[in-house]
Amino acid sequence: MVNMSKEELQIALQNFEKEYEDVKKKGMALDMSRGKPGADQLDISMGMMDVLTSKDVLKDAKGTDLRNYGILDGIAEAKNLMADIMDVKPENVIVYGNASLTIMYDAISRAYTHGIMGSTPWCKLDKVKWLCPVPGYDRHFAITERFGFEMINIEMDENGPDMDMIEKLVAEDESIKGIWCVPKYSNPSGIVYSDEVVKRMAALKPAAKDFRIFWDNAYCVHHLYPEKGAEILNILDECEKAGNPDMVYIFASTSKISFPGSGVAAFASSKNNVEDVKKQLTIQTIGYDKINQLRHVKFFKDLDGVKAHMAKHADIIRPKFEMVLETLEKELGGKGIAKWTKPAGGYFISLTTLDGTAKEIVSLCKDAGLVLTPAGSTHPLKQDPKDNTIRIAPTYPDVEELKEAAHVLTLCVKLASARKLIETK
Amino acid sequence: MVNMSKEELQIALQNFEKEYEDVKKKGMALDMSRGKPGADQLDISMGMMDVLTSKDVLKDAKGTDLRNYGILDGIAEAKNLMADIMDVKPENVIVYGNASLTIMYDAISRAYTHGIMGSTPWCKLDKVKWLCPVPGYDRHFAITERFGFEMINIEMDENGPDMDMIEKLVAEDESIKGIWCVPKYSNPSGIVYSDEVVKRMAALKPAAKDFRIFWDNAYCVHHLYPEKGAEILNILDECEKAGNPDMVYIFASTSKISFPGSGVAAFASSKNNVEDVKKQLTIQTIGYDKINQLRHVKFFKDLDGVKAHMAKHADIIRPKFEMVLETLEKELGGKGIAKWTKPAGGYFISLTTLDGTAKEIVSLCKDAGLVLTPAGSTHPLKQDPKDNTIRIAPTYPDVEELKEAAHVLTLCVKLASARKLIETK
Repeated sequence: MVNMSKEELQIALQNFEKEYEDVKKKGMALDMSRGKPGADQLDISMGMMDVLTSKDVLKDAKGTDLRNYGILDGIAEAKNLMADIMDVKPENVIVYGNASLTIMYDAISRAYTHGIMGSTPWCKLDKVKWLCPVPGYDRHFAITERFGFEMINIEMDENGPDMDMIEKLVAEDESIKGIWCVPKYSNPSGIVYSDEVVKRMAALKPAAKDFRIFWDNAYCVHHLYPEKGAEILNILDECEKAGNPDMVYIFASTSKISFPGSGVAAFASSKNNVEDVKKQLTIQTIGYDKINQLRHVKFFKDLDGVKAHMAKHADIIRPKFEMVLETLEKELGGKGIAKWTKPAGGYFISLTTLDGTAKEIVSLCKDAGLVLTPAGSTHPLKQDPKDNTIRIAPTYPDVEELKEAAHVLTLCVKLASARKLIETK
Repeated sequence: MVNMSKEELQIALQNFEKEYEDVKKKGMALDMSRGKPGADQLDISMGMMDVLTSKDVLKDAKGTDLRNYGILDGIAEAKNLMADIMDVKPENVIVYGNASLTIMYDAISRAYTHGIMGSTPWCKLDKVKWLCPVPGYDRHFAITERFGFEMINIEMDENGPDMDMIEKLVAEDESIKGIWCVPKYSNPSGIVYSDEVVKRMAALKPAAKDFRIFWDNAYCVHHLYPEKGAEILNILDECEKAGNPDMVYIFASTSKISFPGSGVAAFASSKNNVEDVKKQLTIQTIGYDKINQLRHVKFFKDLDGVKAHMAKHADIIRPKFEMVLETLEKELGGKGIAKWTKPAGGYFISLTTLDGTAKEIVSLCKDAGLVLTPAGSTHPLKQDPKDNTIRIAPTYPDVEELKEAAHVLTLCVKLASARKLIETK
């Protein structure tokens, strides 16, 4: 399409606009905006509602009554399970409540109010900066925006974020206190950090002693093709090897394994960090929901149980990803107006369109009854400098809806691209 | 005992010491330190484990799938239930996760990082002060200590805190930002705030616009004698009437109704405060555990269900309170060396001993195998200026253990009192 003459583009545009008007008339109501599991995915976890009944003894292996107060950092059995999921040792884990997002907010909030391991509380500093690989997760950026941190965009390629830039920035600038990372099946690109990226990340030499990598391993077991699932290097081990044992905070949860909102979330880090966090956590809570921790342990049993469960998720969502990817290829392939990632896991596809068209495409889709994640959401302050990134979340709609949705989306991409190309000819 | 001569006291002391040595030899292991329900109390909530099974549809009345993301402020049914428990309207309620302590920490932490309704963040102020009615709850004081607030002790009598002092202080000093209150069956005294105290609290004229009353109604339905349970005035209504609609934050939870750690906690306040909190909360979380909210609603059904349930709790713990109170009366009554509160609800009895003896009594008890809450814990910074306050938590041990524990306690009170009186003769 990029090679068409202005006249050819105008004819194509007329056809797209006619088709778009037809689509609009259908009055569809489709949603590809959020990374939510579909109801059929939730159904596979319903057995969890039966593993604990009034006839069960709600105690851990040590005999502690899990119905009562106590156990700040999670029951041993849940620590073991989350440690296996996160590829760390149980002594490095704190099991929390239902949401890893809350753990991340808390970690930043505590650093802001009290510092990290005795460092100056960030609220007492003139400026705090934060590195944000883009495209990234809107809820991450919302936290660092909330605390008024200056966010610095870091470009990503298929191996992860631009390490040259990160190494340079953190070494020079003491006000840079952290970085958001989704290292595996990144939100929204699906990128998996290469071994080299993980090693270089672990070997950073930040000017700030209280610099922390926020390693949100949200999709650690979320493969679309379990038999050839991606593995990343263990960041905790790599940090240790590189002489930076305390530089990383790792986060994960069962939100997209069991039930979003009713899962179990966990934090993992060095022993020093775990002690530092627990000392503060004991002021915040007496403990998290241990019965729900036990429920998860009883249902999944171990990592193999989790893997078998995740294979069922994969069976449900893989056709959805494939449907969208096929439609993208069929409708947009070879036209020079868009490229997209082909994730092997996670919850998203990232679509890159012609510069200056993403907002228009999302807006066109909305008017045609298809809700997408707002353009810009993939970047700090919701400002995508090139206005060319669209996050596609294919998991929630059913396959038939998704087919229509993908069709509407590609049509809107073509329409907006034709307009943009005509403008620039 | 206070009227005994030095010689009489010395003879008495010898007897107490002999008895104490005998007790020590028994090698007991008793615990009256924490306000935990006993296992028999937890048993009455076990039905909760059966109300949701894999055959149930986990949706709210509107049809929202509660297994998925969403609903920041709690499902409507849980709001209704918590509103009834807290004696407020559902629109004034946010239902959280498992712990009201976490809500309180969060509320203070957010005021510290971002202010309240646009006020200067407290971290930017030179000084923040906080009013602490004493004796009070150690975990409250730990939060305000954590944030470095200067805590000001406020004496309490049988009607609640000293309102003359509070009125004067808050009117004069803009750095006073809040007050901890447990208005009903106060921890640890069991005091219930009188109508006059509630009205004067609601009518405060604080110099600080962002002054908030932290109204921890932890024991709102926790009567020992349900048929004549205490009621307090509705602080939210009273604040509204007094022209201070936004001055109070109310907290409650089902921790001592269902399961501590696996319950449901809630916040209630004016519409303005609820909006202000929700705006911030949406950065912290996507939502709390809605399945557990539904579980509570299904089990309790409504306020009448909660009341019937609380009557069962009362039947279990009333004999424990009565046993301790009888022992106190029998062993210490009329001796002039101790007085104690006679709570009609809540989880604690407050014992006031001779000045300068509380630490010694707790230490004597410990050596005899009875763990009490550390002396001083009832006051900010764990400093009880008169060293005369001991918190008794009678709910966790069984009645037989409690009988022994109360005996050891009263013996240690007599022993320490005799020593103290001899010293001062």
